[in-house]
Amino acid sequence: MNKIRIKSEFWEWYLDIVNDRLIPYQWGVLTDQIACSVPSHAVRNFKIAAGVMDGEFSGFVFQDSDLYKWLEAVGNSLGYEKNPELEARADEIIGYIAGAQEEDGYLNTYFQLKEPDKKWSNLLECHELYCAGHLMEAAVAYARGTGKTRLLGVACRLADCIDRVFGWEEEKLHGCPGHQEVELGLIKLYEYTEETSYLKLAFYFLEVRGQNSFFEEEFERRGRISHWTRGPVDEPNKYYNQYPYTYYNQFHAPVRHQTEAVGHAVRAVYMYGAMAKAAVLGRDEELFDACRTLWENIVQKQMYITGSIGSTPAGEAFTRDYDLPNDTNYSETCASIGLIRFSMEMLKAEPDSRYGDVIERALYNTVLAGMAVDGRHFFYVNPMEAVPEICEANPERNHIKTVRQEWYSCACCPPNIARTITDIQNLIYSVSGRRIYIHQYIGSEMEMKTEEGTIRISLEADFPWNGKVALRLLEGDGLYAEIALRVPDWCRACSLSINGVAVKEEVLDKEKGYIFVKRIWKAEDYLEWDMEMRPQFVQADRRVYYNAGKAAVVRGPLVYCIEEMDNGSYLYECRVDTECTPREEWEEELSGYYSLSLSAVRYQGRIQDKLYDRTLVHKKPVCLKAVPYFLWNNRGQGEMVTWIPVL
Amino acid sequence: MNKIRIKSEFWEWYLDIVNDRLIPYQWGVLTDQIACSVPSHAVRNFKIAAGVMDGEFSGFVFQDSDLYKWLEAVGNSLGYEKNPELEARADEIIGYIAGAQEEDGYLNTYFQLKEPDKKWSNLLECHELYCAGHLMEAAVAYARGTGKTRLLGVACRLADCIDRVFGWEEEKLHGCPGHQEVELGLIKLYEYTEETSYLKLAFYFLEVRGQNSFFEEEFERRGRISHWTRGPVDEPNKYYNQYPYTYYNQFHAPVRHQTEAVGHAVRAVYMYGAMAKAAVLGRDEELFDACRTLWENIVQKQMYITGSIGSTPAGEAFTRDYDLPNDTNYSETCASIGLIRFSMEMLKAEPDSRYGDVIERALYNTVLAGMAVDGRHFFYVNPMEAVPEICEANPERNHIKTVRQEWYSCACCPPNIARTITDIQNLIYSVSGRRIYIHQYIGSEMEMKTEEGTIRISLEADFPWNGKVALRLLEGDGLYAEIALRVPDWCRACSLSINGVAVKEEVLDKEKGYIFVKRIWKAEDYLEWDMEMRPQFVQADRRVYYNAGKAAVVRGPLVYCIEEMDNGSYLYECRVDTECTPREEWEEELSGYYSLSLSAVRYQGRIQDKLYDRTLVHKKPVCLKAVPYFLWNNRGQGEMVTWIPVL
Repeated sequence: MNKIRIKSEFWEWYLDIVNDRLIPYQWGVLTDQIACSVPSHAVRNFKIAAGVMDGEFSGFVFQDSDLYKWLEAVGNSLGYEKNPELEARADEIIGYIAGAQEEDGYLNTYFQLKEPDKKWSNLLECHELYCAGHLMEAAVAYARGTGKTRLLGVACRLADCIDRVFGWEEEKLHGCPGHQEVELGLIKLYEYTEETSYLKLAFYFLEVRGQNSFFEEEFERRGRISHWTRGPVDEPNKYYNQYPYTYYNQFHAPVRHQTEAVGHAVRAVYMYGAMAKAAVLGRDEELFDACRTLWENIVQKQMYITGSIGSTPAGEAFTRDYDLPNDTNYSETCASIGLIRFSMEMLKAEPDSRYGDVIERALYNTVLAGMAVDGRHFFYVNPMEAVPEICEANPERNHIKTVRQEWYSCACCPPNIARTITDIQNLIYSVSGRRIYIHQYIGSEMEMKTEEGTIRISLEADFPWNGKVALRLLEGDGLYAEIALRVPDWCRACSLSINGVAVKEEVLDKEKGYIFVKRIWKAEDYLEWDMEMRPQFVQADRRVYYNAGKAAVVRGPLVYCIEEMDNGSYLYECRVDTECTPREEWEEELSGYYSLSLSAVRYQGRIQDKLYDRTLVHKKPVCLKAVPYFLWNNRGQGEMVTWIPVL
Repeated sequence: MNKIRIKSEFWEWYLDIVNDRLIPYQWGVLTDQIACSVPSHAVRNFKIAAGVMDGEFSGFVFQDSDLYKWLEAVGNSLGYEKNPELEARADEIIGYIAGAQEEDGYLNTYFQLKEPDKKWSNLLECHELYCAGHLMEAAVAYARGTGKTRLLGVACRLADCIDRVFGWEEEKLHGCPGHQEVELGLIKLYEYTEETSYLKLAFYFLEVRGQNSFFEEEFERRGRISHWTRGPVDEPNKYYNQYPYTYYNQFHAPVRHQTEAVGHAVRAVYMYGAMAKAAVLGRDEELFDACRTLWENIVQKQMYITGSIGSTPAGEAFTRDYDLPNDTNYSETCASIGLIRFSMEMLKAEPDSRYGDVIERALYNTVLAGMAVDGRHFFYVNPMEAVPEICEANPERNHIKTVRQEWYSCACCPPNIARTITDIQNLIYSVSGRRIYIHQYIGSEMEMKTEEGTIRISLEADFPWNGKVALRLLEGDGLYAEIALRVPDWCRACSLSINGVAVKEEVLDKEKGYIFVKRIWKAEDYLEWDMEMRPQFVQADRRVYYNAGKAAVVRGPLVYCIEEMDNGSYLYECRVDTECTPREEWEEELSGYYSLSLSAVRYQGRIQDKLYDRTLVHKKPVCLKAVPYFLWNNRGQGEMVTWIPVL
């Protein structure tokens, strides 16, 4: 296995938050030691199922997954750095999980405790396979991180159980999950154990989707009762989004024939990620083509500038091409995590800077925005703009919270952030033959096995604040290797020097958004790679109606926003001069950041005697202070705007 | 009774549409002779209940009210002008209605045919009293219009039945309607019949509201089953808006202690109108004060510039002060009709031009926008702006239709428009002692009984296109009368002459937005009253966040909008120069209208290779053509914007 050490002030700060605060905090929540508005009961459910505690199941039908995601983060974390106390805690919990597992491998505390005779009877709504998938991901992470295989054994037994129940064979159930995730879990389980039945089962779940009417049949079998309303409904998914109900869970067509991202955004990208992984493992070009098409559809037509997806809270879903409202969007943190994972699978299969661009966009904007700098408050929904009074008053905007919440009863996002940040090193590079692709400029020391041998490189960067990157060869003297550096989409000018000697641009190999340095490396060789990082104004494609006449401010990978506390109330009155040169200033507060000063004019309104009165707009030159979007709402509640009307 | 004859090209055109097209069209719908996506079955239900036809009930629980509202419009229409064929049709229907009524006076085809043992068991959701109220209004209109009292007898028997069931007495049910309307119906029935028990019962329904826990108790009695989901729900109104459920039907507080308009907008204004009427009849100052407070709250804080109300489709409801989104609003046509009726009750009780302003605003903008010029297509929802692609794609905007629909399964708005337009003459003036208040400048001949005697006046006006009005005394020579002319809020300058002699402004009496002409009138006396009617730009109070930096264009009472067919796609790119002097042009198409040409600049976007790219706004001077909002979407589907960013 390749080894990597993060050496980035920025990311070490976040890793510390996750390790020192988020993981312990989540432990407190999962074990009900931290008082939440809605107690988690996740650990308690397992203890009850394991017979070591009395009580009743409590929580959502997918409550188990919260604990699994926590264990995945713990596995990642322990793999990076030992922590005996944390490991002991995790081992104890794993004992309960193992104890809860039934003879035949079945494991899901909701059904075991609450509806033991209803297992596998409502695949559309009840998340059994979803939870199983998260168990598999956690088990692999924990085995990789600790070398311990007890959880892996549990996951394999559950996978075997699922394999006996589901499949193409006549006597098996021909269903697939309403919430995709088991596909990815099975593939990871296959990668780690090399047990081909898991890959085969993953393929089955992907392929059967949209090929039969299993969901309709099980709907009739259960008397058309919805798990969520406990009453009969007209059609499956009646209470979700407005589209034909098959779109919500992406079973409107066989997966390889799907061309547009539709339905619940998290389900979609979890599935696309599994499809990409499966396509590579199965050398399935057609399936991979479908992934390309879906990825292009998302990033060219359905993605926010912050790398978030899901334009509507109705079904937490995609809507249509170019429908990207700023004030009613969903943009779930988990969906961006899924998009990162999907993009990473694509990137590993066919390096192209555009995949890395999207990962960077989603990571530095939406994923980081999902958590407060205190590591204890979270956004589930990430709006492009918000006015607290409006979000409180208006039902179409009320899903948008303007203060990060302590925890959620449906607590998918916080543990998802934990497992993503603890796995951050795996986004940095990939190796293909003699090529080493550097995708993300995260300061680190990396040991990589190429076709030619082991190479060790240090990457020094003050990213995302500075575009200067230094790469230095630590080990691999005399080795031929082609180092590929991603040229980010925000980078308008760049320069490279090798051992202090500038390289002319025209002599550099370029391919799919990477520049290549091909040479036999010598110890202490160093590259200086300088990507110009200047504030820029960006506009959206005209077909995004909502952004007509507006611009966003970006600097490197970071999208900026303006906040009420810096600029006063009624931010919508402000218009920015896109001809101005923003002034950058380093701010020490929070985790430190560059703020930007922008020339602007405020079209100041009035508090009027009459609700509607003659116009009397007062135009007032103002200087707007913009801050990175990912840090918004860390200094108190207030208005926030990302897309600012241009002057 | 005072007599009035409409002599207005504008309104005669609308009266013709309603009489010649809308009323016959509705007849076709109600009798299932016109194919609709969802057949009405309203008449059929009555025939079945009357035993003259076999079959089952079909339609909503409030289906009866569609027919009642049609009969109210027919009553209005027949009162204005005889139409034996129409009267015969109505009489036949009235026969079925009478035939359907039970021995004890009960009448509601849904419960009679479908759930005969569940009468009065779900007042919150099931509209029995709502339908009864519409029957009462229809019965009074029909009796007034035709002198025939058969329907009135039915209504009285039903009112008596209700009186036996509901009231303060121990043995009666202590409930009130989930959808207010019976209060107004009972009061009108009292006014016509002078039967005081009806007024007493109306007071009971108003007063008991918010005073007990009847709705909660009946909810428990029916096993917490919702009529709408047919399954158990956590609390009454679970599936309506987000606020505490008592707000949706305005039973969060006793009505006389309510201070803000909340919940379902139609229910609210129907109730406020009844409260105002009851307060006057009962000389109840406290109750009237509550009406003033509620009215002020609506028009100062919760009303759109078009006189529409209801900021959210969630519960078709009010939200909070100043929350007036342009692209996700509800603004139901029926709610504006209710607001007009409420305002008219206030106006009759205490003349103040502001009531007339609101009536004018709602009437000339929202109510007329609710119907296409063909009289056969209708808007239920009246947005301030719309992009067809967005309304189709986005669930938070999907309630907004960008083409008027033929009919709705919940068909409240079209018959409401019919009964409002056929009753238009009753909005024009009111008499108080020796005073004649002219509220609306609708061309007409009016015969009015004042304290001093009968006076007959002709009002000539080319309203809403021209602000010049001529009043001429036709009868009443030698009579003293004080004619009060409303000075509309849009009027910045006005002048008056009496018999051709200009009157200096300073000698005119003014009070509450009216100017008074007090004199002993002579035959052929004439007043020329000229209200300057020029296009103006209007801005909203700053607290309406959504309208920051935007202006609306108005001309007289009419709000204007820009449409795609005149100005090209991507209307959001356009910014208007509020310093410009709009050019007016008379257009012959549709029913004829003034269009306005506005100087503007288009901040033109690009169809881009990348969804987000460097700004390159191209500013292009353009001339925008604006048309009256009430006529939008009469020339095809396309984008529409009312609040335009200012340059």
